[in-house]
Amino acid sequence: MTDMQDDAPKSPGSGPSRRDFLRTAGLAAGGAVVGAGANAASPDPLITEVQPYASFLGEGVDATPYGMPIHYEDHVVRRNVEWLTADPISSINFTPIHALDGTITPQGCAFERHHSGAIEMSKDEYRLMITGLVERPLVFTFGDLLRLPRVTRVHFCECAANSGMEWGGAQLNGAQFTHGMIHNMEYTGVTLRTLLNEAGVKPEGSWIYVEGHDASSNGRSIPMEKALDDCMIAFNANGEALRMEHGYPVRLVVPGWEGNLWVKWLRRIGVHDGPMESREETSKYTDLMPDGRARKWTWAMHAKSVVTSPSPQMPIGHGPGPMVITGLAWSGLGKIARVDVSLDGGVNWQTARLGTEPGDKAVTRFYLDHEWDGQPMYVQSRAIDETGYVQPTKEQLRAIRGLNSIYHNNGIQTWYVNENGEAENVEVS
Amino acid sequence: MTDMQDDAPKSPGSGPSRRDFLRTAGLAAGGAVVGAGANAASPDPLITEVQPYASFLGEGVDATPYGMPIHYEDHVVRRNVEWLTADPISSINFTPIHALDGTITPQGCAFERHHSGAIEMSKDEYRLMITGLVERPLVFTFGDLLRLPRVTRVHFCECAANSGMEWGGAQLNGAQFTHGMIHNMEYTGVTLRTLLNEAGVKPEGSWIYVEGHDASSNGRSIPMEKALDDCMIAFNANGEALRMEHGYPVRLVVPGWEGNLWVKWLRRIGVHDGPMESREETSKYTDLMPDGRARKWTWAMHAKSVVTSPSPQMPIGHGPGPMVITGLAWSGLGKIARVDVSLDGGVNWQTARLGTEPGDKAVTRFYLDHEWDGQPMYVQSRAIDETGYVQPTKEQLRAIRGLNSIYHNNGIQTWYVNENGEAENVEVS
Repeated sequence: MTDMQDDAPKSPGSGPSRRDFLRTAGLAAGGAVVGAGANAASPDPLITEVQPYASFLGEGVDATPYGMPIHYEDHVVRRNVEWLTADPISSINFTPIHALDGTITPQGCAFERHHSGAIEMSKDEYRLMITGLVERPLVFTFGDLLRLPRVTRVHFCECAANSGMEWGGAQLNGAQFTHGMIHNMEYTGVTLRTLLNEAGVKPEGSWIYVEGHDASSNGRSIPMEKALDDCMIAFNANGEALRMEHGYPVRLVVPGWEGNLWVKWLRRIGVHDGPMESREETSKYTDLMPDGRARKWTWAMHAKSVVTSPSPQMPIGHGPGPMVITGLAWSGLGKIARVDVSLDGGVNWQTARLGTEPGDKAVTRFYLDHEWDGQPMYVQSRAIDETGYVQPTKEQLRAIRGLNSIYHNNGIQTWYVNENGEAENVEVS
Repeated sequence: MTDMQDDAPKSPGSGPSRRDFLRTAGLAAGGAVVGAGANAASPDPLITEVQPYASFLGEGVDATPYGMPIHYEDHVVRRNVEWLTADPISSINFTPIHALDGTITPQGCAFERHHSGAIEMSKDEYRLMITGLVERPLVFTFGDLLRLPRVTRVHFCECAANSGMEWGGAQLNGAQFTHGMIHNMEYTGVTLRTLLNEAGVKPEGSWIYVEGHDASSNGRSIPMEKALDDCMIAFNANGEALRMEHGYPVRLVVPGWEGNLWVKWLRRIGVHDGPMESREETSKYTDLMPDGRARKWTWAMHAKSVVTSPSPQMPIGHGPGPMVITGLAWSGLGKIARVDVSLDGGVNWQTARLGTEPGDKAVTRFYLDHEWDGQPMYVQSRAIDETGYVQPTKEQLRAIRGLNSIYHNNGIQTWYVNENGEAENVEVS
């Protein structure tokens, strides 16, 4: 900011470093010093000249019945990594978490992962079956779902493979790519418990098997205990209908558990006396251990965090002085209790400020207000959830899990920030 | 929903009315009865036939870097009422609250109100001045704002004229038009307290006067007590940058107070020893009383609620049986404590279920799970906030305030729902 009256008396409340910021930032921004009594060596024309906004420029409210981001924000979009999946259509893209703030992910920015493409299904065409070990097999229309008791809850959805490319070492240079297979939205729908109670689960019904209307069906088994606990049949996200790519008109929400269980275009809920051991839970979504055996049913996404700014796509952009370090933390086991930030690669830690009240299985925003001395930093964050679980280092994970898997990498991320404020994906040992 | 096995034993937990729903809804949806042992007189082809979704249909993740609503939802848009304002460009549109659920308003659906059109200003061009009774007049660039401690909070923004067309009687036939000048978003920014502390408010600085970069400037006075309490300089809403029509890159957030104070494209904060009594706070935004005198400084939006479904744009759409009555409640004085719903025009009331944890000066969603007997209803909702304030009837408001004003109508809304489930804006006496 620019000090417009540099000879003014000092405010009692402002310390020396904040005063330095006032001077430094003013100079960095072009050195305009304006205002009563100021020495205006190089006045800022954006202040001193009449701007075009002083005349009428608007197109009126009919211009955008559905509002879009301004073109200056065209860079805040989902991106893919071309070499990541064999089939460019059956693919993945990433939420631009580096460029967002707060906790809510706008639907337009929320990552996609399809096994056989997004499908365009109307509410009129939609049917949901409950079959198997139930007293009354049922078929619901979309309209039927709207007649059942409704809930609204905020939850994150994280792909099991989020950060999966980083098991072997720092690779993708941006928080969007290392940690962007997550979104956090306010869902509205019907609990799975309500639906299952309508059908009447038989005593031997201990698992459900959920499938989508798309060609892949993406069938996954879920234990009945979880199905009856907090799962939802969601039709709205952040107030409005789901987007096509997120399962319009209906997707399953499985709070805290890996995203592939959140079946989109939900078609059938089968009640069974055991898991299905389907293609999606044997050929994929198991974690291959060093000895060749596989961990399976690793559903919960454990506590994790990442600094979103500064990060490779978000350099500091100014010289020494005050800055905000911010990021996201979440846990599939409950609420975030605390987030620590290290600036020296994990030697010393300070507790960050939680910007929002932590929600159950929802993303929490953290901030650390920092006085940067202009020296390089190794920036890390570490999440701790209400169960006491502490986000591990990558070394701790690798010591147990080896390097065979791409799933469930919740290790601590390091960004090396150089003296120019530019950040890079690195590891510290 | 369709009962696929109508001769199955009854589940112990389901009462007679829910069973009636299972039968009735099945018949209403076309009467398909399918499944093992069922008498499939008219099988539902959407269940029994192979659907096109069984083959690959997707375009891949590159199709929509920024995701848009599916075309089936094209009706969920902001709308204006052409005769409401003299100048069609300097105008108003309304949030489609009837078609949304949950509490978050997506930016694309959030109402607009401009005094001289939306302006297209880049972050690089943006400047914010603090002038007047301060120790250090300051100019902030957008980058400067990003260096200051940041907060994230959810708040509603309601135009003082929301429901203003209803003072004289029921007029606009839709919740979007009677109550749609409200939105509720998660804002990220810097507190006004932080900025004012940077500048150092002099002891005699008791009011601020805030102005925008647009031609109207929309200058408004705010007492220092409010400015230092909970006001924010916001640059993000629901995670991403503000939309142009909401003040990109920066708007003022004045929690709980009327929307015209939430100055967009915020240009200057003047610190003064009294209010400015500007055009916007004398010719507009005062409440003309029956005796010709005007109430002024009526900033806080008092507790209010509306049933969004059923409503004129959202008929029930099915016959007797289970249904969900839902709506929104909010208070500019704090949190919502309770919402009551009446189905007989205010004679009897039942307490609705709050769908979300009430936030401070934020919208709360309420639900009432109702067994509709198919008879006409006079549906109302009544909000009570944590201060004990009870949303008044329109008669109670008119008895004191008369009919001269268009502002601050928070009276109880009535929808008449006929035996076909169609709703109409009416008043009951």
